[in-house]
Amino acid sequence: MLFSLSVIPIGTGSSLGDQLAKVLKIIDESGLPYKTNPMGTAIEGEWDEVMELIKKCHQSVMASNERAYLIINVDDRKSKPNRLEGKVKSVEERLGRELKK
Amino acid sequence: MLFSLSVIPIGTGSSLGDQLAKVLKIIDESGLPYKTNPMGTAIEGEWDEVMELIKKCHQSVMASNERAYLIINVDDRKSKPNRLEGKVKSVEERLGRELKK
Amino acid sequence: MLFSLSVIPIGTGSSLGDQLAKVLKIIDESGLPYKTNPMGTAIEGEWDEVMELIKKCHQSVMASNERAYLIINVDDRKSKPNRLEGKVKSVEERLGRELKK
Amino acid sequence: MLFSLSVIPIGTGSSLGDQLAKVLKIIDESGLPYKTNPMGTAIEGEWDEVMELIKKCHQSVMASNERAYLIINVDDRKSKPNRLEGKVKSVEERLGRELKK
Repeated sequence: MLFSLSVIPIGTGSSLGDQLAKVLKIIDESGLPYKTNPMGTAIEGEWDEVMELIKKCHQSVMASNERAYLIINVDDRKSKPNRLEGKVKSVEERLGRELKK
Repeated sequence: MLFSLSVIPIGTGSSLGDQLAKVLKIIDESGLPYKTNPMGTAIEGEWDEVMELIKKCHQSVMASNERAYLIINVDDRKSKPNRLEGKVKSVEERLGRELKK
Repeated sequence: MLFSLSVIPIGTGSSLGDQLAKVLKIIDESGLPYKTNPMGTAIEGEWDEVMELIKKCHQSVMASNERAYLIINVDDRKSKPNRLEGKVKSVEERLGRELKK
Repeated sequence: MLFSLSVIPIGTGSSLGDQLAKVLKIIDESGLPYKTNPMGTAIEGEWDEVMELIKKCHQSVMASNERAYLIINVDDRKSKPNRLEGKVKSVEERLGRELKK
């Protein structure tokens, strides 16, 4: 199952880098496969383990904020493992060219 | 904590009404406060209880689909209960007019 | 075509009500059919007219903020007019019960 | 301004690769800076040029589908150019480590 997570701390100025660094550290140390990008982070895993990780990220943000917004998208496709690598690759093969990543 | 949930079953035609009806039935019978709208459903509750409900909704969709997409947004604000009613009301008071709902 | 819009002003405290009131005023006065809910606003219309409206909402928020986040979802289904009313109704008919709105 | 775009064609089976390839080709040939990832594509540019590109992507999907869903997120921050590269880098510098991308 593929998840994407964007965390938006609210009420502490317009620079969110320090708080996003804390979140990315939690994801990086979780051991789950992930890929981060400028608008969020894609994470691969089973429902319970990824949701547990997202809850931890959320709690870390709420520890120093009055308010936070999360955007979580889930793409679940039966019998399709390793989609974190495979999804973009399969599009690149169809196109016969490499995409920017 | 406020959640919004949109469920998009993929791979079974362009009419999703039957499957969304199953999802809304699960939400309606959960006992959690909710408000449905044309683009999703807002649900109020604590993290664990709402995520458990969303997992149930997801499983019900995957029981009859090869693939599904979920969009989950979370708006968490400390010490603000009853936001399912309160958020829109507070905007209406500021505006001095009723909005369409 | 159905759109949902959530506007998240960043960097001006955790109470967003005043800024959301300005946004909802713009939507209400646009004349386009809409329904607001605690997590966003559903708007019905053609691509250009709704995107023009969303741009106006965004500009109004950026006029008093260093940063803002928008979440825009689009559900486009051919030959299906009046979905702002019809989508929830069609689910209610399938369920044989009224949902909370 | 940073945008993220996810396109979900509905009603044509659970494999979406061919249609996503068409969308990514349009983005790649637009000349706008972008980075694709397993859950969507981040694009950098001004409102009008990126929204015009997203409209083209949407039209290409609707040319062969009865229905499609788009998820568009916008992160606009004043006087911050080159955020497609800069956002993740700034988090990595805070962490003193490289993240998976």
